[in-house]
Amino acid sequence: MIITLKKGASKAELDMVLEKIKKLGYKPHISKGKEVTIIGMIGEYAEKYKDIFESMQIVEHVSVIQKAYKLASREFHKADTVIKITKNIEIGAKKIHVMAGPCAIENREIVFGLAKSLKASGATILRGGAFKPRSSPYTFQGLGEKGLKILKAAGEKYRMPIVSEVMTVEQVPLLEKYCDIVQIGARNIQNYDLLKAVGKQKKPVLLKRGMATTVKEFLLSAEYILSQGNYNVMLCERGIRTFEDSTRFTLDLNAVCVLKKLSHLPVVLDPSHGTGVREYVATMAKACVAAGADALVIEVHPKPEEAFSDGPQSLLPDQFDKMMKELALIAKAIGREI
Amino acid sequence: MIITLKKGASKAELDMVLEKIKKLGYKPHISKGKEVTIIGMIGEYAEKYKDIFESMQIVEHVSVIQKAYKLASREFHKADTVIKITKNIEIGAKKIHVMAGPCAIENREIVFGLAKSLKASGATILRGGAFKPRSSPYTFQGLGEKGLKILKAAGEKYRMPIVSEVMTVEQVPLLEKYCDIVQIGARNIQNYDLLKAVGKQKKPVLLKRGMATTVKEFLLSAEYILSQGNYNVMLCERGIRTFEDSTRFTLDLNAVCVLKKLSHLPVVLDPSHGTGVREYVATMAKACVAAGADALVIEVHPKPEEAFSDGPQSLLPDQFDKMMKELALIAKAIGREI
Amino acid sequence: MIITLKKGASKAELDMVLEKIKKLGYKPHISKGKEVTIIGMIGEYAEKYKDIFESMQIVEHVSVIQKAYKLASREFHKADTVIKITKNIEIGAKKIHVMAGPCAIENREIVFGLAKSLKASGATILRGGAFKPRSSPYTFQGLGEKGLKILKAAGEKYRMPIVSEVMTVEQVPLLEKYCDIVQIGARNIQNYDLLKAVGKQKKPVLLKRGMATTVKEFLLSAEYILSQGNYNVMLCERGIRTFEDSTRFTLDLNAVCVLKKLSHLPVVLDPSHGTGVREYVATMAKACVAAGADALVIEVHPKPEEAFSDGPQSLLPDQFDKMMKELALIAKAIGREI
Amino acid sequence: MIITLKKGASKAELDMVLEKIKKLGYKPHISKGKEVTIIGMIGEYAEKYKDIFESMQIVEHVSVIQKAYKLASREFHKADTVIKITKNIEIGAKKIHVMAGPCAIENREIVFGLAKSLKASGATILRGGAFKPRSSPYTFQGLGEKGLKILKAAGEKYRMPIVSEVMTVEQVPLLEKYCDIVQIGARNIQNYDLLKAVGKQKKPVLLKRGMATTVKEFLLSAEYILSQGNYNVMLCERGIRTFEDSTRFTLDLNAVCVLKKLSHLPVVLDPSHGTGVREYVATMAKACVAAGADALVIEVHPKPEEAFSDGPQSLLPDQFDKMMKELALIAKAIGREI
Repeated sequence: MIITLKKGASKAELDMVLEKIKKLGYKPHISKGKEVTIIGMIGEYAEKYKDIFESMQIVEHVSVIQKAYKLASREFHKADTVIKITKNIEIGAKKIHVMAGPCAIENREIVFGLAKSLKASGATILRGGAFKPRSSPYTFQGLGEKGLKILKAAGEKYRMPIVSEVMTVEQVPLLEKYCDIVQIGARNIQNYDLLKAVGKQKKPVLLKRGMATTVKEFLLSAEYILSQGNYNVMLCERGIRTFEDSTRFTLDLNAVCVLKKLSHLPVVLDPSHGTGVREYVATMAKACVAAGADALVIEVHPKPEEAFSDGPQSLLPDQFDKMMKELALIAKAIGREI
Repeated sequence: MIITLKKGASKAELDMVLEKIKKLGYKPHISKGKEVTIIGMIGEYAEKYKDIFESMQIVEHVSVIQKAYKLASREFHKADTVIKITKNIEIGAKKIHVMAGPCAIENREIVFGLAKSLKASGATILRGGAFKPRSSPYTFQGLGEKGLKILKAAGEKYRMPIVSEVMTVEQVPLLEKYCDIVQIGARNIQNYDLLKAVGKQKKPVLLKRGMATTVKEFLLSAEYILSQGNYNVMLCERGIRTFEDSTRFTLDLNAVCVLKKLSHLPVVLDPSHGTGVREYVATMAKACVAAGADALVIEVHPKPEEAFSDGPQSLLPDQFDKMMKELALIAKAIGREI
Repeated sequence: MIITLKKGASKAELDMVLEKIKKLGYKPHISKGKEVTIIGMIGEYAEKYKDIFESMQIVEHVSVIQKAYKLASREFHKADTVIKITKNIEIGAKKIHVMAGPCAIENREIVFGLAKSLKASGATILRGGAFKPRSSPYTFQGLGEKGLKILKAAGEKYRMPIVSEVMTVEQVPLLEKYCDIVQIGARNIQNYDLLKAVGKQKKPVLLKRGMATTVKEFLLSAEYILSQGNYNVMLCERGIRTFEDSTRFTLDLNAVCVLKKLSHLPVVLDPSHGTGVREYVATMAKACVAAGADALVIEVHPKPEEAFSDGPQSLLPDQFDKMMKELALIAKAIGREI
Repeated sequence: MIITLKKGASKAELDMVLEKIKKLGYKPHISKGKEVTIIGMIGEYAEKYKDIFESMQIVEHVSVIQKAYKLASREFHKADTVIKITKNIEIGAKKIHVMAGPCAIENREIVFGLAKSLKASGATILRGGAFKPRSSPYTFQGLGEKGLKILKAAGEKYRMPIVSEVMTVEQVPLLEKYCDIVQIGARNIQNYDLLKAVGKQKKPVLLKRGMATTVKEFLLSAEYILSQGNYNVMLCERGIRTFEDSTRFTLDLNAVCVLKKLSHLPVVLDPSHGTGVREYVATMAKACVAAGADALVIEVHPKPEEAFSDGPQSLLPDQFDKMMKELALIAKAIGREI
């Protein structure tokens, strides 16, 4: 947090500000210029005391942009950011895009079959996991590069850009090479080296909120990516962990409103993970569109009971098709399209 | 939970079941009939072991309806319940109703002014608090009966049924007398004597979920009311308490899907409390309609900065009017009206 | 929150303060005296802006005691409150008291048997529920007055004061008549009329924190009781609801530190509900004593598998006896006794 | 989950089991041996249905060890694991060890001064961060290898083994080289590649629970490390994220009981992060010892107001010294030493 004092501040007035900063448990850094004295108040959460200093008569201005998220903030960039994925696909514009596909890439047949079907139903982006973060070391961990090749081939055949998750810094070049969008999963939301690494590559990033990440922390994680020069970050809410256990997570649609207010970045919603239950996905997808989602992530699998992971939350292709028709009506009702 | 054994179960087989029940920490109650042996497994959460017993070959049938919610369940009543408030107003039918008004009834002028305006904008039910649950004993606690008279007079003038909160068993007759719908607030979700008391009076009940109430507990609280003979209960989700602090609560729209699946009762949503922030209310109201709400509760105040309570989340009348127009489009998109 | 301006504040300076109050969404109430101007800033959570106003040069003093909890605060009463239950039993003094007994009073035999055994092991207060708040309307709801009579008789025989829960305003005289301590359960933490009613009777109150009640709200609920003239309130932490599901609740021992800092009232801990699992109770009881508990609540039952409620978390009498010996060592280590 | 059928199971009985597995949404894998038929039930959370299959008469045995954590489980290794750090220091034995030091390594002077003082007070292990995970990209990120060298030098001078956090796979060799214990921070609890990498190096690992990690997930993350051959893992509870905001996190002492029951690995507690408030640390440290901690992590800083991070929760050296004396009494009371 940067505190700028008024011209002509006396020594006593400066000391009062410094003492307050110390009393709050922070360290002041003083920078005296010819005309203006600037004080840096360094430390986590310093910004929550902004009002205190703004209220001091000797203070000219308080700026928190150097502390919390800066590049991700609405103040930094007033207009909504629109991210160009391909010539025809932009996230954050009028059209709401749907990223659909299986949780994990299992084999060529399933992926190609799905791509054809999803494209016909209106999905514009193909998703699928080649590297899978699994809570147990003994479960299927993904096909790796082989999976990316399958996904890319299917995407090319059906003219759908593809998105897949990156789990480690070493995998970044591979994902950058094959994918049109690189996804950071919920479990890596505070894997700062990975955030920096995707910030240095060129492809747009789909950043998933962690299950216990506050909106502010979410934007700080986005800031890690932006700070490396990659401004094409999509913020994806996918359910938070609460006491409620009748759904796998609690999809936090309030967060869409908060993110849209605080940031200019596009907001994506994932009702598949956000509910964890197949029969709730389509209804919640409608709510997501109504709440202002710029894109949706939907898991689809032709035989969910045979899926390697997340079968219980995957839609069948015909359920997906029906959902898309319903979403189109909601999108139209709010002046958008899908 | 009631476990029915197959005909001809042997003593050894019966003992095996009894031992399992005891091992799980419950008390078995045996009822031997001429042909059939029935075992009651008594205790909280017994129903979660349903599958264990269903899987035993000697077990004919397991029924949990006597344990958890029974009357509130979709099994008990397959079709959606439609609650008739007045001749023209039904909650749970095609038309989505909006209950609007100030958080607290402050004076005649504000209530009448609001009623006129809200009615013109499309609200069909007038809400306002006469008895206010406040976390501090030193804040405004409501006008009491005087407030109810004001609300009723305004409702009559503008032909809007009225809803207000009851806080104690003693207040029940008063609320029953003046109101068309009696509201149980979130803080009283497990005030079981109050639940029983509103179960014995005749007016429909708007039951608000507690801030840490699971969906299952919510339905059990509804069951308390239903079990007394009052079947006209509306389930109102109004935000749950989570770690996220950028909104006052986290509005749990997933719960709409779960409630609709498990129960036949109408579901009402309160985006005013569910966000706690004025500028998020209209957007979330759209999401609520898309998620399948049968009614909405919206706080409106002509001068929120002067409201006795909950000013920060109250819409201005013109914001409400604009919201209603937008909601009408969403309602139409899902085959309903508002 | 009460803001006192410095003598000689100008109209412009007053206006600046008023504008800030309004901008924060609150309503200022101005009281101009001959020498001093006092501004009331009314509304929930006003106190969190205390620092802002304290930082204004024109402000002499900011006091929040009229807004949030006042009588419960450490500022109001610096020394630890010691509550006299009987001639020999004081809560909040050197000796840590243990309130033990069954969850529910089931019959005379069990209660008398337990009282004898618990007394011998070192428990000083006998607990048992006569009115039971149960999430399902179909489970055992308690013996009522008959149960209180049994508990009182057992308490008299073994010279142990008794504590039992009150659920409704109507029950208050009954509990006041039979019990030495009246308990408010977690589910009634914001049942304000009940809080006021126990505030008007004479017996000390054991107030249990709700499962989603913040420490601040907990103290505000205590304030409801204190504000009616009953200053003998014990604050009982009994586990909060979190995402963790390997225990029934998460016992929040941090809260002991916070309560002791903010308030002068004795702090009681309930590791039986706070874990919900028998084999964790004794270990957590040790942690409770080390954390500074002034008393413990422990559920004991001779045959937990036959208990009407909460069997899985009840200790056996011999487990209780062993625990008491261990607790004595911990108590001694921190300069107390048990 | 591995389901072993009884010898002589018929085709019909096998089919019944298979159908149940499919009905639950999982995929059965059948392995028919000459005498025994084994069915693998693959998928997340399969183990929660263990009881169902155990209850089937045709089932001989159900084993979940291949699905969830196996090597971390108490079943796999009955006795408590004792981890040898140096010749004289063992974690998990009678003596409780205290790992103390600054949050971040800032300079040589502070670290050496602290090491001398902490050693004198009874700390046996020196901690300090060289690589710091910070939620903002604009705050101090640690001294890196230079910091490790300082920490090692101080550790050698005062004969204290050292522990420091590793944030990326690339840093693993560096941490392995300098440190006696390698720490995985809370934010990396599901950074699976990092877990595997520390599982392949030789130094003992201090694994911190994530702020929204369940106990079961915590053990699965430990399993990732163990599965690579490194069996020396310490499980560190450091506070979970809940709705309560009067402390930074809620220290979950219940988890100590659960971890000790489910696993043989030593349990470490971090009351500094678990409270986030200096004046609560010493009291909670006592509770941690009473709850059965095998070691503690305590942040200490000579000038907390000047610390680069986590100043508000750091003890002063003299506060640390006083705490150690108090902890010794608690340790003795439970038959241990510190």
